[in-house]
Amino acid sequence: MSPKITVELLRQLRQVMKNSKYITEPIQAYIVPSGDAHQSEYIAPCDCRREFICGFNGSAGTAIVTEQHAALWTDGRYFLQASQQMDNNWTLMKMGLKETPSQEDWLISVLPENSKVGVDPWIIAADQWKNMSKALSSAGHSLVAVQDNLIDVIWEDRPARPSTKLITLGLKHTGLTWQDKVTALRGKMAERKISWFVVTALDEIAWLFNLRGSDIEYNPVFFAYAIIGMSNIKLFVDRKRLMEPVVREHLELDSPSKPELTIQCFPYESVYMELQAVCAALAPKEKMWICDKASCALTQVIPKAHRSAIPYTPLCLAKAVKNPTEIQGMKMAHIKDAVALCELFAWLEKEIPKGTVTEISVADKAEELRSQQKDFVGLSFPTISSVGPNGAIIHYMPLPETNRTLSLNEIYLIDSGAQYLDGTTDVTRTVHFGTPTDYEKECFTYVLKGHIAVSAAVFPNGTKGHLLDSFARAALWDSGLDYLHGTGHGVGCFLNVHEGPCGISYKTFADEPLEAGMIVSDEPGYYEDGSFGIRIENVVLVIPAKTKYNYRNRGSLTFEPLTLVPIQLKMINTDLLTQKERDWVNDYHKKCRETIGAELERQGRKEALDWLIRETQPIV
Amino acid sequence: MSPKITVELLRQLRQVMKNSKYITEPIQAYIVPSGDAHQSEYIAPCDCRREFICGFNGSAGTAIVTEQHAALWTDGRYFLQASQQMDNNWTLMKMGLKETPSQEDWLISVLPENSKVGVDPWIIAADQWKNMSKALSSAGHSLVAVQDNLIDVIWEDRPARPSTKLITLGLKHTGLTWQDKVTALRGKMAERKISWFVVTALDEIAWLFNLRGSDIEYNPVFFAYAIIGMSNIKLFVDRKRLMEPVVREHLELDSPSKPELTIQCFPYESVYMELQAVCAALAPKEKMWICDKASCALTQVIPKAHRSAIPYTPLCLAKAVKNPTEIQGMKMAHIKDAVALCELFAWLEKEIPKGTVTEISVADKAEELRSQQKDFVGLSFPTISSVGPNGAIIHYMPLPETNRTLSLNEIYLIDSGAQYLDGTTDVTRTVHFGTPTDYEKECFTYVLKGHIAVSAAVFPNGTKGHLLDSFARAALWDSGLDYLHGTGHGVGCFLNVHEGPCGISYKTFADEPLEAGMIVSDEPGYYEDGSFGIRIENVVLVIPAKTKYNYRNRGSLTFEPLTLVPIQLKMINTDLLTQKERDWVNDYHKKCRETIGAELERQGRKEALDWLIRETQPIV
Repeated sequence: MSPKITVELLRQLRQVMKNSKYITEPIQAYIVPSGDAHQSEYIAPCDCRREFICGFNGSAGTAIVTEQHAALWTDGRYFLQASQQMDNNWTLMKMGLKETPSQEDWLISVLPENSKVGVDPWIIAADQWKNMSKALSSAGHSLVAVQDNLIDVIWEDRPARPSTKLITLGLKHTGLTWQDKVTALRGKMAERKISWFVVTALDEIAWLFNLRGSDIEYNPVFFAYAIIGMSNIKLFVDRKRLMEPVVREHLELDSPSKPELTIQCFPYESVYMELQAVCAALAPKEKMWICDKASCALTQVIPKAHRSAIPYTPLCLAKAVKNPTEIQGMKMAHIKDAVALCELFAWLEKEIPKGTVTEISVADKAEELRSQQKDFVGLSFPTISSVGPNGAIIHYMPLPETNRTLSLNEIYLIDSGAQYLDGTTDVTRTVHFGTPTDYEKECFTYVLKGHIAVSAAVFPNGTKGHLLDSFARAALWDSGLDYLHGTGHGVGCFLNVHEGPCGISYKTFADEPLEAGMIVSDEPGYYEDGSFGIRIENVVLVIPAKTKYNYRNRGSLTFEPLTLVPIQLKMINTDLLTQKERDWVNDYHKKCRETIGAELERQGRKEALDWLIRETQPIV
Repeated sequence: MSPKITVELLRQLRQVMKNSKYITEPIQAYIVPSGDAHQSEYIAPCDCRREFICGFNGSAGTAIVTEQHAALWTDGRYFLQASQQMDNNWTLMKMGLKETPSQEDWLISVLPENSKVGVDPWIIAADQWKNMSKALSSAGHSLVAVQDNLIDVIWEDRPARPSTKLITLGLKHTGLTWQDKVTALRGKMAERKISWFVVTALDEIAWLFNLRGSDIEYNPVFFAYAIIGMSNIKLFVDRKRLMEPVVREHLELDSPSKPELTIQCFPYESVYMELQAVCAALAPKEKMWICDKASCALTQVIPKAHRSAIPYTPLCLAKAVKNPTEIQGMKMAHIKDAVALCELFAWLEKEIPKGTVTEISVADKAEELRSQQKDFVGLSFPTISSVGPNGAIIHYMPLPETNRTLSLNEIYLIDSGAQYLDGTTDVTRTVHFGTPTDYEKECFTYVLKGHIAVSAAVFPNGTKGHLLDSFARAALWDSGLDYLHGTGHGVGCFLNVHEGPCGISYKTFADEPLEAGMIVSDEPGYYEDGSFGIRIENVVLVIPAKTKYNYRNRGSLTFEPLTLVPIQLKMINTDLLTQKERDWVNDYHKKCRETIGAELERQGRKEALDWLIRETQPIV
């Protein structure tokens, strides 16, 4: 991985920062967040502005360029990768370390007095704008909205915004029609006396309308906005996508069943003007919902007196609690996914001794095997396929220049997942094809203990995920070890592999209580720079737990693993497990053998079945 | 408990609400918060205004009087007590119940249009003022600051503000002179480019100046303010307290060593005018720190451009991290405290069969025994001494009409602590003097497992206390049980028994990372309404932990119990403990026996020593 040379780009950017064609007064710093106008985590190539300016292409990071400095903030997953992808014009700001200043503090320390800091108001979320603006003004500076994106100005061959074909999903996959979902949403709005709701998150729009797209790789979403009123549905999307008869029929565009369920279609770009029009017509006491993570640009269209900014939307919550159809779909998707992975591991055992299997070829093989499964749509994120030291790069993606060959001597970590019409998967397994060292086994076992501690946890209804995070770390902490990422994230159903508003993390923001039907990942890890990486990840479903007592009738919850792929026994130091933990491993492997075994048998995949049976022997 | 008759008082209050002698325009409602001008948790009799107007004397509650209505908001701990202490002029607003309106919502529902709501700006914290004011103005009303406290106007025999003798603490007790503390504080101010700091919390002032008072029961503080500049120290305190030669010498009032360490003394009441004078002389970019929990009155003196409101102050943090002298003092205080408690339990075993020991008599006996220890000053909070069902009332305090007799049949819970010149204690033990039921033992053992899980936890430097809270609950959760309070609070050193900014709670606000030298309580519990209460509380010191590995050189922390009082073995179902937990109990009891045994021997307290030896036998 050679760093991107940014000397010329930075020179150009610093020039436009002073160019009156784009800004009324020169700015002394320009903030380039990752993210698009929908605050998406994964973004389309046309929105990869932060990567364009600094070279770092991880999923999270903010670049700031001043007249003298250029700095990038990213988190522990990306320290190594960022340092490799950026040239020495850039300072890497390692978030989460004590000595690392916040963006605000850093700006205040380097800026001359009374500076102006620019940012594209479509790319920065309203809540971030507020915090940044407050911090800067308290130090005598100001945050200014720059309407023209200055990266776009200097980006000569910037790709066009995608507009892919839409997929319609029927009741079989969604369990609820979009009309039902709109009606339920309006019920929530009526409860809170809200007359309008501006929907900006792409997965919320896709979920609400039971539509999918492929505008953003790995995320089956499409560029759109929606404004929902008590008797209006305004959808903003590239109009040519609505020409397909199946889409027109799905949305009842030509023959709406009821007036209040009639969708008015507008071009994607007209959301700003239409929102202005809606706001202009509001009665004095009318309130409009918008997520506080929506863009500053759209948020500020709504007059303060009418604006009700919410940390997460009712759609986000409704989407997170899967209905029985979605749960069944997720289970099916995970069974198919496990079939593909069992095949992959059986194949690897045969092939590795030949010395020709590489990180990239395994990733390709995994995709090939998954694509043979019914209703496969694509991958749910770039496969992390990493050998030895590459495994320590938490969000590693093999490139030709980093590609390592799998061997009998190094740990191999694969974190991968797929989109199926019925669900989304995300699974990590860490394996050794030779003989792991005692130290590798020790670390693996601590990670496994953490994984089990979360998976088997019983906790009261209403508990937030952050209260479970330490369970995943306790065994590592006891030995002075840790990992610098959260333990789990929400998982969509044939939607984004990362979704809110719940998760399991030491970070406590945007963390809504867990409830039955939510689906999250459980993925503790341990990473030793330059040596190896270990992560054990299952997707788990929140289910009611049976307990001996029931304090104040609150009820309890626990998790059911949806991922059913064996955990390599060779990596476990069973002496470090308690009897309860051994029982958990055996029960889990029994379930893998029964459920996935039956499907392997049905699909006639004999070698994988033999491998599964061998890998799920009980431990004692 | 008969209710206070408030007809006449309410009539008087409603009159002064319209009296132009006190207010420029009539107000339609008057808010009476609990709390004093320093936002203290415990308050002096002269500040018990909410109790005066409505009769309810619990520690938390807000009264609001309008022209037609009078209502009191309090939480679940006090529903019964408040309903008994108030007459039927008052409506009890049960906080936490779904149907109970917030103060803001209630005011909006009962007030005529364009009403003015008054409050004493000294009693309401700046952040509360902000929220209330925002809610009222959004409904067309306004919150107004009434300079004369209207309760004081009608309170004829209001006690005088206490002005007790000041105690000076030397290096032997504090480890740092007040001059060192001021210099360190100025270092923090310089780091953040702050030129002034307004200190309003009484414990921060007491800690900074190495002075103590007894103005508020249980809290060794005194009424004062301080304004610290880079070359000024302004202390606002009743001047007659500074007449004592020992105080004058301690503060170097007559012969300051350096100009920047010269204390200027002002009357307590002149803080407002003096702060105005300081603000008037500020240079354009000068910033002044004030806690966002300080009074609205003082906060608003500081022009916004100069004000830097912080959620907790550098003194709060400095005070929380105890220095070696303070740690040594806290250890000594806990040894003496344990001696008193061993004596108490030995005495109880003899006395209880006589049937004459009551909740109140135990509390009195505990105080008597503690008062025999060196440098005893007083109790650190009202003793919670509770038998059987009274134990389920978490903040129970025995009164003659609720006083139960201790017996061989019911669980007894005592939560008590003292102030010594060298430290503050807070300990809870739950015991049975007959034979506990299997269920009582089961619950006790879950609580003990939680207590041990926190006490023995190893965690990385920089971890916040809320990440440890679930360790205390896991064993209870597994069985469907829980407790509805936090697990621990910061403890002062010969200061307030509750202090910030760290703690162990599922609530995550105002939670600063734990660091070596901090002292917190570890007190999980379980409460069964109408039956019993269980709590096991030690005060623990955060210390560095030795671990096998040291990830990223962060270092690890763990806890060392300062409280050394046996945990009743009879209450433990040892089958439910792991070997590690049994070892912890045995190690803990060994330490109790060695440390407290030596002191009991030194003090010649033979019976208590025999009791200690018997109660600290190892379990197998």
